[in-house]
Amino acid sequence: MNSKWRKDILTTTNQKLSIFALGGVNEIGKNMYVIQAEDDIVVIDCGAKFPDETLLGIDLIIQDISFLQENKDKLRALIVTHGHEDHIGGIPYFLKQLNVPIYATNLTLGLIEIKLKEHGLLRQTKLFMIDSESELTFGSIRTTFFKTSHSIPDCLGIAFHTSQGTIVHTGDFKFDWTPVDEHGPDIHKMAALGENGVLLLLSESTNAERPGSTPSERLVGDHIEEAFRHAPRKVFISTFASNVHRVQQIVNAAIKTNRKLALLGRSMVNVVSVAMERGYLEVPDGMLIEASEVNSMDPEKVVVLCTGSQGEPMAALSRLSSSNFRQVEVLPEDTVILAASPIPGNERSVSRIIDNLFLLGARVIYGSGSVTGLHVSGHACQEELKLMLTLMKPKYFIPIHGEYRMLHQHRILAESVGVQTENIFIVNNGDVVDIVNSEATQTRSVDAGNVFVDGFGIGDVGEIILRDRKLLSEDGMLVIVTTVSKSQGKIISGPDTISRGFMYGPESGELINEVNQLVRTTIDKMKDNSRNQRVLKQNIKKSVEKHLYSRTKRKPMILPIMIEV
Amino acid sequence: MNSKWRKDILTTTNQKLSIFALGGVNEIGKNMYVIQAEDDIVVIDCGAKFPDETLLGIDLIIQDISFLQENKDKLRALIVTHGHEDHIGGIPYFLKQLNVPIYATNLTLGLIEIKLKEHGLLRQTKLFMIDSESELTFGSIRTTFFKTSHSIPDCLGIAFHTSQGTIVHTGDFKFDWTPVDEHGPDIHKMAALGENGVLLLLSESTNAERPGSTPSERLVGDHIEEAFRHAPRKVFISTFASNVHRVQQIVNAAIKTNRKLALLGRSMVNVVSVAMERGYLEVPDGMLIEASEVNSMDPEKVVVLCTGSQGEPMAALSRLSSSNFRQVEVLPEDTVILAASPIPGNERSVSRIIDNLFLLGARVIYGSGSVTGLHVSGHACQEELKLMLTLMKPKYFIPIHGEYRMLHQHRILAESVGVQTENIFIVNNGDVVDIVNSEATQTRSVDAGNVFVDGFGIGDVGEIILRDRKLLSEDGMLVIVTTVSKSQGKIISGPDTISRGFMYGPESGELINEVNQLVRTTIDKMKDNSRNQRVLKQNIKKSVEKHLYSRTKRKPMILPIMIEV
Repeated sequence: MNSKWRKDILTTTNQKLSIFALGGVNEIGKNMYVIQAEDDIVVIDCGAKFPDETLLGIDLIIQDISFLQENKDKLRALIVTHGHEDHIGGIPYFLKQLNVPIYATNLTLGLIEIKLKEHGLLRQTKLFMIDSESELTFGSIRTTFFKTSHSIPDCLGIAFHTSQGTIVHTGDFKFDWTPVDEHGPDIHKMAALGENGVLLLLSESTNAERPGSTPSERLVGDHIEEAFRHAPRKVFISTFASNVHRVQQIVNAAIKTNRKLALLGRSMVNVVSVAMERGYLEVPDGMLIEASEVNSMDPEKVVVLCTGSQGEPMAALSRLSSSNFRQVEVLPEDTVILAASPIPGNERSVSRIIDNLFLLGARVIYGSGSVTGLHVSGHACQEELKLMLTLMKPKYFIPIHGEYRMLHQHRILAESVGVQTENIFIVNNGDVVDIVNSEATQTRSVDAGNVFVDGFGIGDVGEIILRDRKLLSEDGMLVIVTTVSKSQGKIISGPDTISRGFMYGPESGELINEVNQLVRTTIDKMKDNSRNQRVLKQNIKKSVEKHLYSRTKRKPMILPIMIEV
Repeated sequence: MNSKWRKDILTTTNQKLSIFALGGVNEIGKNMYVIQAEDDIVVIDCGAKFPDETLLGIDLIIQDISFLQENKDKLRALIVTHGHEDHIGGIPYFLKQLNVPIYATNLTLGLIEIKLKEHGLLRQTKLFMIDSESELTFGSIRTTFFKTSHSIPDCLGIAFHTSQGTIVHTGDFKFDWTPVDEHGPDIHKMAALGENGVLLLLSESTNAERPGSTPSERLVGDHIEEAFRHAPRKVFISTFASNVHRVQQIVNAAIKTNRKLALLGRSMVNVVSVAMERGYLEVPDGMLIEASEVNSMDPEKVVVLCTGSQGEPMAALSRLSSSNFRQVEVLPEDTVILAASPIPGNERSVSRIIDNLFLLGARVIYGSGSVTGLHVSGHACQEELKLMLTLMKPKYFIPIHGEYRMLHQHRILAESVGVQTENIFIVNNGDVVDIVNSEATQTRSVDAGNVFVDGFGIGDVGEIILRDRKLLSEDGMLVIVTTVSKSQGKIISGPDTISRGFMYGPESGELINEVNQLVRTTIDKMKDNSRNQRVLKQNIKKSVEKHLYSRTKRKPMILPIMIEV
């Protein structure tokens, strides 16, 4: 534990200070911000992002950390604000490239440890537990913390005290004045930071487009209890496993309505056990039952808490909806509660699950959280963002963690509470804000961008591979193999054409014959002039492409292979 | 024109009547419903659906019309309720398989004609113009119509008067009491139908999950005018081209704010000219300017009306947002209005466009129509659906046009206004409701389902092709070619391995060497036993797959090719 502020080494010289956005601006996901005071670099968060449907075959997107690799001798710490995927998901891949000690709170460390175990990295990684009272010093950077409210417990905002002034990074936050665990946001600490002077604020922007304030998580608890009370038979409820406060409220509602609780889905089981072990979740003895016990219980006495609220096809809710779960079944008059809003992009898969659940005869409670009361956001809306800006009253402001329109709206909010327009920096990933003599400028940038993880490969899949996958996915491919004699260029065997993903059935056979004839003609023509293989293949490719397009309006990938024997 | 009710041939015997859902239930898109009275078949609508991202390379989804092909001698007419894609998009493909006269209103015919021209089908197709006063008789089916309000003008609901009773199909509708074109819904006709007795109602379900009523289209006009008035420079506004009422309100707002109007995007130009020609859109002379004139005009005097409100990557708005339009540019302080809500699935692409427009310095007005007032739905919400059900007071009810949860909610609405639960049929595509002695039952079904259009191919792409495309899209493929001697099975040339979409760079070379060595070993082993090519290829496939997965955690498609010379 390195929680003592080592005052002795804190320098007071006017060192240049730099802030790097390596991920998390102009996007949701893969957050990573970096602070450098000359010889000391501290990284904040290391998230991952899930690819959209255009990135074929990609498993995960992480940051380009070449800047950190080039400066690894200065790298002091990775501080993690909280345990969500977009803040911790990149850690195993980071550690495979660079070793760094990690500082995080108890629950956050628990969630990080699950990942490190999966990647076989737990033993070799230095993990340090901190809390909101910790003080850390990394060379000339002294670090203090404040508690924030969010949709996962044990979140921190960070204050970096440097010779240039204080830099505050909010982490993810909302202001929940009636928190489920009675750990409210450290508003007095935030106020004190502002009073003492904040040079630069980095504040999250996820809900910057939404007016008003985000309701308290407690609101959800009341609605869950009511829904459980009115459910005639079994209750299934799906939410993010990491929303431990909501899980606690589900436990509480189950107790009050005299129901036992079963957990379905690997991440639900993992997170609940970590949260219970570390004291973030209170579940009375005998409350939890095994999934295998559900069928034999009185349906009025059961709640099944499951993963898959975002429509993930392999998660519990999706499998339940297609009657594809070995031990548990959704039956007519069972109640299914979706206690989460679909993240943009997931609407269709979530809708499909709801359709299937209705088809099974279930009562499904779904829809916008503002209507059902069964979901609230974990992020600050406009009034709360203005509160944070007002508390911190920073000289400089960088809106972080959001797509461009959110950063843009956050800038307007900052202007409205008095931050000077010219002191607000909307940056791109890779951009650097340098501070000298307490004056900030944004003039340079470093390498940053998306690194794709595909299987074991980190960064080996690039534009060419993705372009080929896209081509293959649209109209498939044809391999045309011809064996020719080395001496005369005469066809010895073939052409033989094999297609995949292109066409099927009788029409295909006829077309393949045409292709083979076309290739024969092309080879024969070329024989007389030159037997340059590259040119020959190009000619085959072009003529076959042209023919197939005119016949089918499809453009499969053509791979001509010439064998000389 | 066949608009006379030929009373003479109207039979009064008690013929069996059947209603077929061939598309449009349990889905949004590709609507097609069919009514059959013994020897007479009438088809209602022929829509298409756009594929989601899982249907790789598919251009369009249409209905399986094998039932109609088997009964083509009975096929009398295709009646089209209105001109939206999900009601007309399948017509060219239908006509390529089956000839049928088409009956539709003036504007709907205009939009159908655009499609038929594109497919070279206009001259050979019989088109009949009808209006809400038309009466058509097809054998024993007499057909009358009533006007409805929707997000396109000239919409019809249909009443089929048969010996079994009256069947009503609503088409798409809302109740707009203050319509833009002063053609309100024919509520008195609807009431009269109900008073005279409706045996079966088929009513659309798109907004059955939404409480309340949909606001009038007029509301949008006021907000558009206000937005134009406050715009400091050029205005760009994007909406569905087919929403002619909204286009009219945009024209009106442009006139009132003293701006000229340019049209961008092929479908906008097409629809506006059809609507003007046919009298659905009034645009004063001199109001329209060419896109090429925009840059030279005073920016305060211009509105650009463009396609692409759903984020379609090739449409005008997307190209404007990436500064990829030859003639027109979005400049700082220009205003861009998104007068449409993203259809589920399109949120991400629309968001990306908004981000890019903000980056260009534009003022972007976007967000939920209920907040901005710049979009209203074209579909009836719950109170309006109950009004339709109450007006028609049908004995039987089939909720149509919606995903399952919408049909389910519509059923609950029908029950709430007094339709007997056992008289409500939630059907699947292909299901048939038979009516004999004015009693309806649902016991049988016919072939129905998704037919994929890919290039010129209709229905030739099936599960196998799609599975191969998915495989290819995820990890690419390897072709391994080996030439062996026919006599001894000895390797003469190769193995040579070519990969696409799999791996790239130096690591790939090493792996390919390993694969070639593995193939050599496998062939050598086999040589001693048998030279069954099929088994040999299987063995190569399996061993290479296993090796690559252990080395890369990827599963490319493996195509071993053996040439015997």
